[in-house]
Amino acid sequence: MASARYDVLGIGNAIVDVIARAEENFLLRHDMRKGTMALIDEARAQAIYEAMGPAVETSGGSAANTTVGLASLGARAAFVGKIKDDPLGRAFAHDIGAAGVAFATAPAPSGPSTGRCYVLVTPDGERTMNTYLGAAQDLRPSDIDAETIAASAIVYLEGYLWDPKNAKDAFLKAAKIAHESGRKVALSLSDAFCVDRWRDEFLQLMRSRTVDLIFANEAELHSLYQTSDFDAAVRALRGDIDIAVVTRSEKGCLVISPDGNEAVPAFPIERVVDTTGAGDLFAAGFLSGLARGADDRTCGRLGALAAAEVIQHLGARPQTSLKDLARENGLAD
Amino acid sequence: MASARYDVLGIGNAIVDVIARAEENFLLRHDMRKGTMALIDEARAQAIYEAMGPAVETSGGSAANTTVGLASLGARAAFVGKIKDDPLGRAFAHDIGAAGVAFATAPAPSGPSTGRCYVLVTPDGERTMNTYLGAAQDLRPSDIDAETIAASAIVYLEGYLWDPKNAKDAFLKAAKIAHESGRKVALSLSDAFCVDRWRDEFLQLMRSRTVDLIFANEAELHSLYQTSDFDAAVRALRGDIDIAVVTRSEKGCLVISPDGNEAVPAFPIERVVDTTGAGDLFAAGFLSGLARGADDRTCGRLGALAAAEVIQHLGARPQTSLKDLARENGLAD
Repeated sequence: MASARYDVLGIGNAIVDVIARAEENFLLRHDMRKGTMALIDEARAQAIYEAMGPAVETSGGSAANTTVGLASLGARAAFVGKIKDDPLGRAFAHDIGAAGVAFATAPAPSGPSTGRCYVLVTPDGERTMNTYLGAAQDLRPSDIDAETIAASAIVYLEGYLWDPKNAKDAFLKAAKIAHESGRKVALSLSDAFCVDRWRDEFLQLMRSRTVDLIFANEAELHSLYQTSDFDAAVRALRGDIDIAVVTRSEKGCLVISPDGNEAVPAFPIERVVDTTGAGDLFAAGFLSGLARGADDRTCGRLGALAAAEVIQHLGARPQTSLKDLARENGLAD
Repeated sequence: MASARYDVLGIGNAIVDVIARAEENFLLRHDMRKGTMALIDEARAQAIYEAMGPAVETSGGSAANTTVGLASLGARAAFVGKIKDDPLGRAFAHDIGAAGVAFATAPAPSGPSTGRCYVLVTPDGERTMNTYLGAAQDLRPSDIDAETIAASAIVYLEGYLWDPKNAKDAFLKAAKIAHESGRKVALSLSDAFCVDRWRDEFLQLMRSRTVDLIFANEAELHSLYQTSDFDAAVRALRGDIDIAVVTRSEKGCLVISPDGNEAVPAFPIERVVDTTGAGDLFAAGFLSGLARGADDRTCGRLGALAAAEVIQHLGARPQTSLKDLARENGLAD
């Protein structure tokens, strides 16, 4: 197997976040389920934008955030996702490139505009997301470059990709090439309702060993196995996949691997400002550890550290060098 | 004199901020003068954007920020400024409207795009700004609605308006209508280099009583009177205008009025994250006090409070209710 050019290549929906603070009753009034991601059409996107407060725009997208976190941690990262050649798309491309992530997916010259996610942050720091996929839904198998996939040690896929039909095929093509090249494939389950939409297919991906590693939070895990019994869900997970990481917010995470189960605590923080990107950055930290052969505990602590940084400010991308932060905490040389 | 519909109507350049963190040597390499605002053309805007790091986009513009601060403090505020009918312009209009500021200036249907300011924030929290005025330079006298000006207790103008030629005429038209209607006119000197470009005209505006109140920071004051002697500059200022407020960063501010000079301390803060908007929000706090007939000291403290909030996060607009903050600090009912 040739040595890898990238530690991690992420594939996901290319999305620009439009973030505003909102009161709890705003969510109720607009029929939103707190803490989850809903897919919306252009008309609803327009209605939500008109009703929501003053916003900040920042590049987002789950797997994209993860690759930016990886670059901030000093790992070599690449991203594949579809933008349109429009102002939002150009901002997305600028931001991910300026963060040090290789991004070469050809933008769509026409069709729907670059995808947007309207993120409502309630006073408790929880975020509720409404995504208009736009150009992101046009990611297709021809956007997957076999040579680049084969040159990436880990291919990381977001579960949200299962929503747009063509992206699913791109996902499967990438996973196949990765395994044929002796690489690993990781999947984030993304969202409890996303799991609800695609439960059987996600389980099939795990059981068929199409993916080697999954990331899930507690809600996603409970949704996957349709049980409220955490221990039962963890036992089921052990049988379905080699490595799984279950994130548990302030309770830290549980790493399930052939070496056993390892519980890793969260990093203490002063105040949760905005949880957007917590899972994405956790995955970045964990994968950065995995890429350099760290043990489960170190990988988990790197994940917790990166997640702690991103929830202490607005927006889903790090505002400081995660590598410096890891160093200060004895987690990097 | 009819009772006012707005406490303050701000007129300024409508600008969207594109904010990124940068090291000191980035400023040197790109020939930028730290802490100041430079006007740039589209080619330089492009070059700076390509070189700068991942960015966050948020609506800005000096007087626009002030009106948003006023609304957050519970005052009735309106804004006049020129956007283009493009994605950035629509974001600007959304944000200022959602903040509770009346904004009805007709967008330009064609011509240059909505103005942008590339804000580089160095590790010390200081910001260095590069502004592409775009559509903002097309603000003209016909955008000034006499009835609205006459219905505003205070008309607040940013010195930056002196850069685009037509905007200057709009400024003078608004000041004339305001005075004919028995209203007050306030001016922010905006930037030391802006003062350097327009020194004689600014002094003339003051001496001719075209403006009744000015806001200046120390650098602008020194530039105005071309002296490094603070006390001499303050004495000169006393002779040139009725009311002046000199902001002095962590040293607080000095209010110069017919009642005498009043030094007001700054609010203690934990950490300066980004000084963008400090002067704009100071003006918002001060004017909110003035609008309700508060004394100089209370006005100064309201200014200091609003400035303290905005420098503790990225971006030039408040992220919390300034009215609640004022209440918690005994500065509002």
